[in-house]
Amino acid sequence: MHPSLLQDAGCPKEIPHNEKLLSLKYESLDYDNSENQLFLEEERRMSFLGFKCLEISRWVICGLIGFLTGLIACCIDIAVENLAGVKYFVVKQNIEKFTEVGGLSISLILWAVLNAAFVMVGAVIVAFFEPGAAGSGIPQIKCYLNGVKIPRVVRLKTLVVKVCGVICSVAGGLAVGKEGPMIHSGAVVAAGVSQGRSTSLKKDFKIFEYFRRDTEKRDFVSAGAAAGVSAAFGAPVGGVLFSLEEGASFWNQMLTWRIFFASMISTFTLNFFLSIYNKKPGDLSSPGLINFGRFESDVSVCGLLGALFNILNYWLTIFRIRYVHQPCLQVMEAMLVAAVTATVSFAMIYFSNDCQPLGPDQSEDYPLQLVHICLFIFLVGLLVPTSIVKHLFCADGEYNSMATAFFNTPERSVRSLFHNPPGSYNPLTLSLFTLTYFFLACWTYGLTVSAGVFIPSLLIGAAWGRLFGILLASITPDGSIWADPGKYALIGAAAQLGGIVRMTLSLTVIMVEATGNVTYGLPIMLVLLTAKIVGDYFVEGLYDIHIKLQSVPFLHLEAPATSHWLTAREVMSAPVTCFNRIEKVGTIVDVLSNTSTNHNGFPVVVPVAVCGLILRSQLIVLLKHKVFVELARSRLTQRKLQLKDFRDAYPRFPPIQSIHISQDERECMMDLTEFMNPTPYTVPQETSLPRVFKLFRALGLRHLVVVDSENRVVGLVTRKDLARYHLGKHGLEEMQLAQT
Amino acid sequence: MHPSLLQDAGCPKEIPHNEKLLSLKYESLDYDNSENQLFLEEERRMSFLGFKCLEISRWVICGLIGFLTGLIACCIDIAVENLAGVKYFVVKQNIEKFTEVGGLSISLILWAVLNAAFVMVGAVIVAFFEPGAAGSGIPQIKCYLNGVKIPRVVRLKTLVVKVCGVICSVAGGLAVGKEGPMIHSGAVVAAGVSQGRSTSLKKDFKIFEYFRRDTEKRDFVSAGAAAGVSAAFGAPVGGVLFSLEEGASFWNQMLTWRIFFASMISTFTLNFFLSIYNKKPGDLSSPGLINFGRFESDVSVCGLLGALFNILNYWLTIFRIRYVHQPCLQVMEAMLVAAVTATVSFAMIYFSNDCQPLGPDQSEDYPLQLVHICLFIFLVGLLVPTSIVKHLFCADGEYNSMATAFFNTPERSVRSLFHNPPGSYNPLTLSLFTLTYFFLACWTYGLTVSAGVFIPSLLIGAAWGRLFGILLASITPDGSIWADPGKYALIGAAAQLGGIVRMTLSLTVIMVEATGNVTYGLPIMLVLLTAKIVGDYFVEGLYDIHIKLQSVPFLHLEAPATSHWLTAREVMSAPVTCFNRIEKVGTIVDVLSNTSTNHNGFPVVVPVAVCGLILRSQLIVLLKHKVFVELARSRLTQRKLQLKDFRDAYPRFPPIQSIHISQDERECMMDLTEFMNPTPYTVPQETSLPRVFKLFRALGLRHLVVVDSENRVVGLVTRKDLARYHLGKHGLEEMQLAQT
Repeated sequence: MHPSLLQDAGCPKEIPHNEKLLSLKYESLDYDNSENQLFLEEERRMSFLGFKCLEISRWVICGLIGFLTGLIACCIDIAVENLAGVKYFVVKQNIEKFTEVGGLSISLILWAVLNAAFVMVGAVIVAFFEPGAAGSGIPQIKCYLNGVKIPRVVRLKTLVVKVCGVICSVAGGLAVGKEGPMIHSGAVVAAGVSQGRSTSLKKDFKIFEYFRRDTEKRDFVSAGAAAGVSAAFGAPVGGVLFSLEEGASFWNQMLTWRIFFASMISTFTLNFFLSIYNKKPGDLSSPGLINFGRFESDVSVCGLLGALFNILNYWLTIFRIRYVHQPCLQVMEAMLVAAVTATVSFAMIYFSNDCQPLGPDQSEDYPLQLVHICLFIFLVGLLVPTSIVKHLFCADGEYNSMATAFFNTPERSVRSLFHNPPGSYNPLTLSLFTLTYFFLACWTYGLTVSAGVFIPSLLIGAAWGRLFGILLASITPDGSIWADPGKYALIGAAAQLGGIVRMTLSLTVIMVEATGNVTYGLPIMLVLLTAKIVGDYFVEGLYDIHIKLQSVPFLHLEAPATSHWLTAREVMSAPVTCFNRIEKVGTIVDVLSNTSTNHNGFPVVVPVAVCGLILRSQLIVLLKHKVFVELARSRLTQRKLQLKDFRDAYPRFPPIQSIHISQDERECMMDLTEFMNPTPYTVPQETSLPRVFKLFRALGLRHLVVVDSENRVVGLVTRKDLARYHLGKHGLEEMQLAQT
Repeated sequence: MHPSLLQDAGCPKEIPHNEKLLSLKYESLDYDNSENQLFLEEERRMSFLGFKCLEISRWVICGLIGFLTGLIACCIDIAVENLAGVKYFVVKQNIEKFTEVGGLSISLILWAVLNAAFVMVGAVIVAFFEPGAAGSGIPQIKCYLNGVKIPRVVRLKTLVVKVCGVICSVAGGLAVGKEGPMIHSGAVVAAGVSQGRSTSLKKDFKIFEYFRRDTEKRDFVSAGAAAGVSAAFGAPVGGVLFSLEEGASFWNQMLTWRIFFASMISTFTLNFFLSIYNKKPGDLSSPGLINFGRFESDVSVCGLLGALFNILNYWLTIFRIRYVHQPCLQVMEAMLVAAVTATVSFAMIYFSNDCQPLGPDQSEDYPLQLVHICLFIFLVGLLVPTSIVKHLFCADGEYNSMATAFFNTPERSVRSLFHNPPGSYNPLTLSLFTLTYFFLACWTYGLTVSAGVFIPSLLIGAAWGRLFGILLASITPDGSIWADPGKYALIGAAAQLGGIVRMTLSLTVIMVEATGNVTYGLPIMLVLLTAKIVGDYFVEGLYDIHIKLQSVPFLHLEAPATSHWLTAREVMSAPVTCFNRIEKVGTIVDVLSNTSTNHNGFPVVVPVAVCGLILRSQLIVLLKHKVFVELARSRLTQRKLQLKDFRDAYPRFPPIQSIHISQDERECMMDLTEFMNPTPYTVPQETSLPRVFKLFRALGLRHLVVVDSENRVVGLVTRKDLARYHLGKHGLEEMQLAQT
């Protein structure tokens, strides 16, 4: 660790999370193979046919990942539909029952309570059982692909909680989407399937053992994330690009094809099962939306709105980190949001007077909407005081458009904003809706429930875009080419989403694939780019903000532009604990037990020149199996340690405290030659930071040994040393390191 | 060089090009920055604003690249249309004139002569002025992005010859497309624009000087290639993926966005200008093609056909390399092919009796087709002997479908195969057409003309697919869902193209974008994958075959699977010529003049440990400017050498022979400290080949220094050392190195 930083690292206790700090609690993943003798022997033993088999199993696994991800998406979809149906049914029953007694207020309360109950279930399982399942999971997956080990992020339990949580929060009527969680789910499925076992269920299928290491697992996780995007948006190419944008440094042609394959299978599976469920053939392409039209003018506003969203959410997140970190409080906040959402929507519909004629074909497309409409016509017709009847009552064959906007699932609302004919919405309704939904969505993101921000962003943008389109049409008399406000809705949605999450390339493709129309590619791309530029001027993307607030040592694509004057000598951690090739067990145990030397990797030297690198996890396995020189001599029958033993221990290596080493054993010696990586990457100490960064990032390293001209170890560069530097307002800034 | 190979390298004279050899004549590009003191000083002097400006100029350049590439595509398109129009007009005139005298044979001769004349012009400029412009240019661009310097590949002259050549060969009626050359053109435009000068025209605009090095240029060239794909197929995302598939190791998020931007601008420019030219608004999305349908069965056959194509072309190319290497012969062969193509098409139409009714709307869609049809109705009606009138004569309002297939531009033929209603083609016509066109296209690819293989492949596949669809419909009575043979044509086209060029991911996206319909994504992808697997079983992709036959040291994505038993020690070239930090000029001149030490890079040692790496090109510039220690002392006023001097010399560094060094100067000393790269990447000699390969490929290296445990130079790994190993039938094989 940098000496000047050691004293700073201890103090910041009052602000546990801060974007100016870099947490030391996150470990890195090892995206560079440890090519020790065991590994090389195994590789050399393997025949050409063996490699072919491995390649085929990779394809099989990717197919499985796609299939399971599609299936999960399908389950979530069906569960949400049915739960929502049950909820409406109960409310309707109660309205009929309570008509005589209390009237509207009781229905409102019931409605709010039901929503809060759903959300409570969702929040409780997240807050108490698996906090890692909160939010969309996209920041976590970004970190994982970047090489940061986020605890418990790809566990089976996380998946279960995530899926149940997202069902509850969507059914609970929160302003959330189920798309982000799908990406996380896909990643968990991939991490599970590719390992051929479940550590949680203590079940080992004895297959895919070769893939039990970080490098291989990462490849599958990126395929899983792509499959998740693909299932969420029906956008297989978008999924591939998402994985590539996030896991940028690990590009490989074969891998990309496998990722693409997983994506394709995923979207196909989803379509196939949903079409069976809906008893009609799957149809990916949405109609409508043919022409370009004008769209540029409201884009920068959307970028601004996106930035505003991010800033508000940033403050809210800081508030939450400081004051709302107890599970009980978190659950209560989630329930509060659910109740407020229900109340606000109710109030909006109550005071809205925007009745629209019911089209002949809408009864088929929006069955759930019809339920709401009936419900509200019913509510309104039966319970309201006489003075406001004229505002609320919509005649038979008409519907309340505010109700449509609020009480549909968000996906349906987006669809109707895109495709409903001009005149379906009145501007006042839309502006009120946009405003309230904006704040609700902003409040909702970051709650301790499992939920995504894609669809709410799209909804806000679509409402805002449509509003803009209506206004534009009203001030231009010859509104022939500007007549369809649906296209403004699409552009607005893209801009808003781009302003919030800032993923230009993959979002363009996702939007194009989701609308099923390539014609819109260029405008969507321009809009996303503008939104990104405008947004970046004010604040970072939402996911990056959340990553920063967690103080994760996230490595960006390139070193900061003005960092050429820094060299490896200034960046590296020194001094470094080194081991000899044959080392005393006691020394090793002491070093591993000492938490202040937690680089998790130790150069091996002979006598002073570096000759290898050994990982903490490898030493733990060696200690556990007591691979001591003396024992090997005395007990000739002892089984030689194999790669399998390391794989079995992966990824949950026991802590050093759980391994018992007797006083006698402490005097034994351990020969590390066979287990260390004999050819670690090294750089001279004069190497510039960008050069170190490039090597580190391109090869997915965890430790980079810094040597002098005689090949002696002078320091070690790890992820935290590189992630510390970032471009601030006044040039290059250095973040402090914190233990928390 | 490997000692055991030295003796082999000399002998193979009778077979100058062979896939078992690796040519030493190709230099590598330097995709790793030489971070010497000059460079670091410049970077450190540059302010944050300076970096911002650079970033903005990168975007501007990409926009320009897109614009110019689109413009070129537009010019080619318009030129081909007009030339073809003139040709048909002349032939028609002549038919009218010669009706009384000679009849059909004269028309045939005129037709063949005209075609041959066009092709001759195209072949002459290619063969005599710029042989680098031959073929599609895709293999060359692949090599360039891979890091191999193909001489003259991104010159202005190449671009001019390429564009004129492709216009001639398409107008000359060869079985070629203009899409491949567009990719090459885009790359040349990018290489030119990004350098801010033209060495050929001796014009330096004094802009973009920062980008005058291999790394930056490569980034722009990949954007140019993407813009080319985008312009050729209207597929901007496909273009990005093409660049990524080919230039795989250089992925970077910002770069990708710029590439995408260039692609978007390119396709937009093309559409914009073409729509002005055609006086109707640009329309990217083709109608039709909605449902999935059955398609799997003929895919592997297409893979087989693709492999057959490649094998035939492989033999042909070997034949050409051995016997047709004189420019005159090459021109004659091209003319022969043009004449044969004309004759065969003529004969096919002559003996065809497939008359189809002329639809009411086809007159609008296919104006050129109508010209042909009129022409042939005319020909046939006037000139034929009485006995075959019944076979040839098509009544008014009918047309000869063989003529449609043969005499359209290939793009139009593909479109009509996709979209014409069922029953437009009769099976016999189609099978004859497929067969002849297959052999013609195969013969044509590799001619010394500038031409692409994409469209011919699509056409063969489409014809074959449609044929299959018709047959399938005829044997299944309830042909309701199998009724549209157009979708078989699409699938067949994808399969054939995949079987020939083997680019799965980008081709899928290109096909999807070109058809404007995402629904076909999954089937196209499965088809391409199958075609690739089947094809790979027999022979490599067409481009890879051509790359191999040129003995280019092409680095694949990964080291061969079974190469773990090889280490850097066995792979590297040794001994290596090293320089001291302060070296005698005479020694340097001698080393540079000696062609047997042509690594183009020399480790700098002090006294034996490696402390830097200096390139031949840097030494040349130093010698040219006479940067000698003695001179610096005596002439204090001498200007210090700057990075600008290196940039001005880039990329055409003078040969050592052109630099005059007097006998006195030979005794001077040169201080290399400031100019060498002080932190070259090094590996220990025990490093396994896959690990060396990964480092080399991921960082785009040109030289990798192999050191022992005391940091002493023991060898140097270059591209040729890694490209030598490949997986053959009997495991790992080693290619021989040849000087030619």
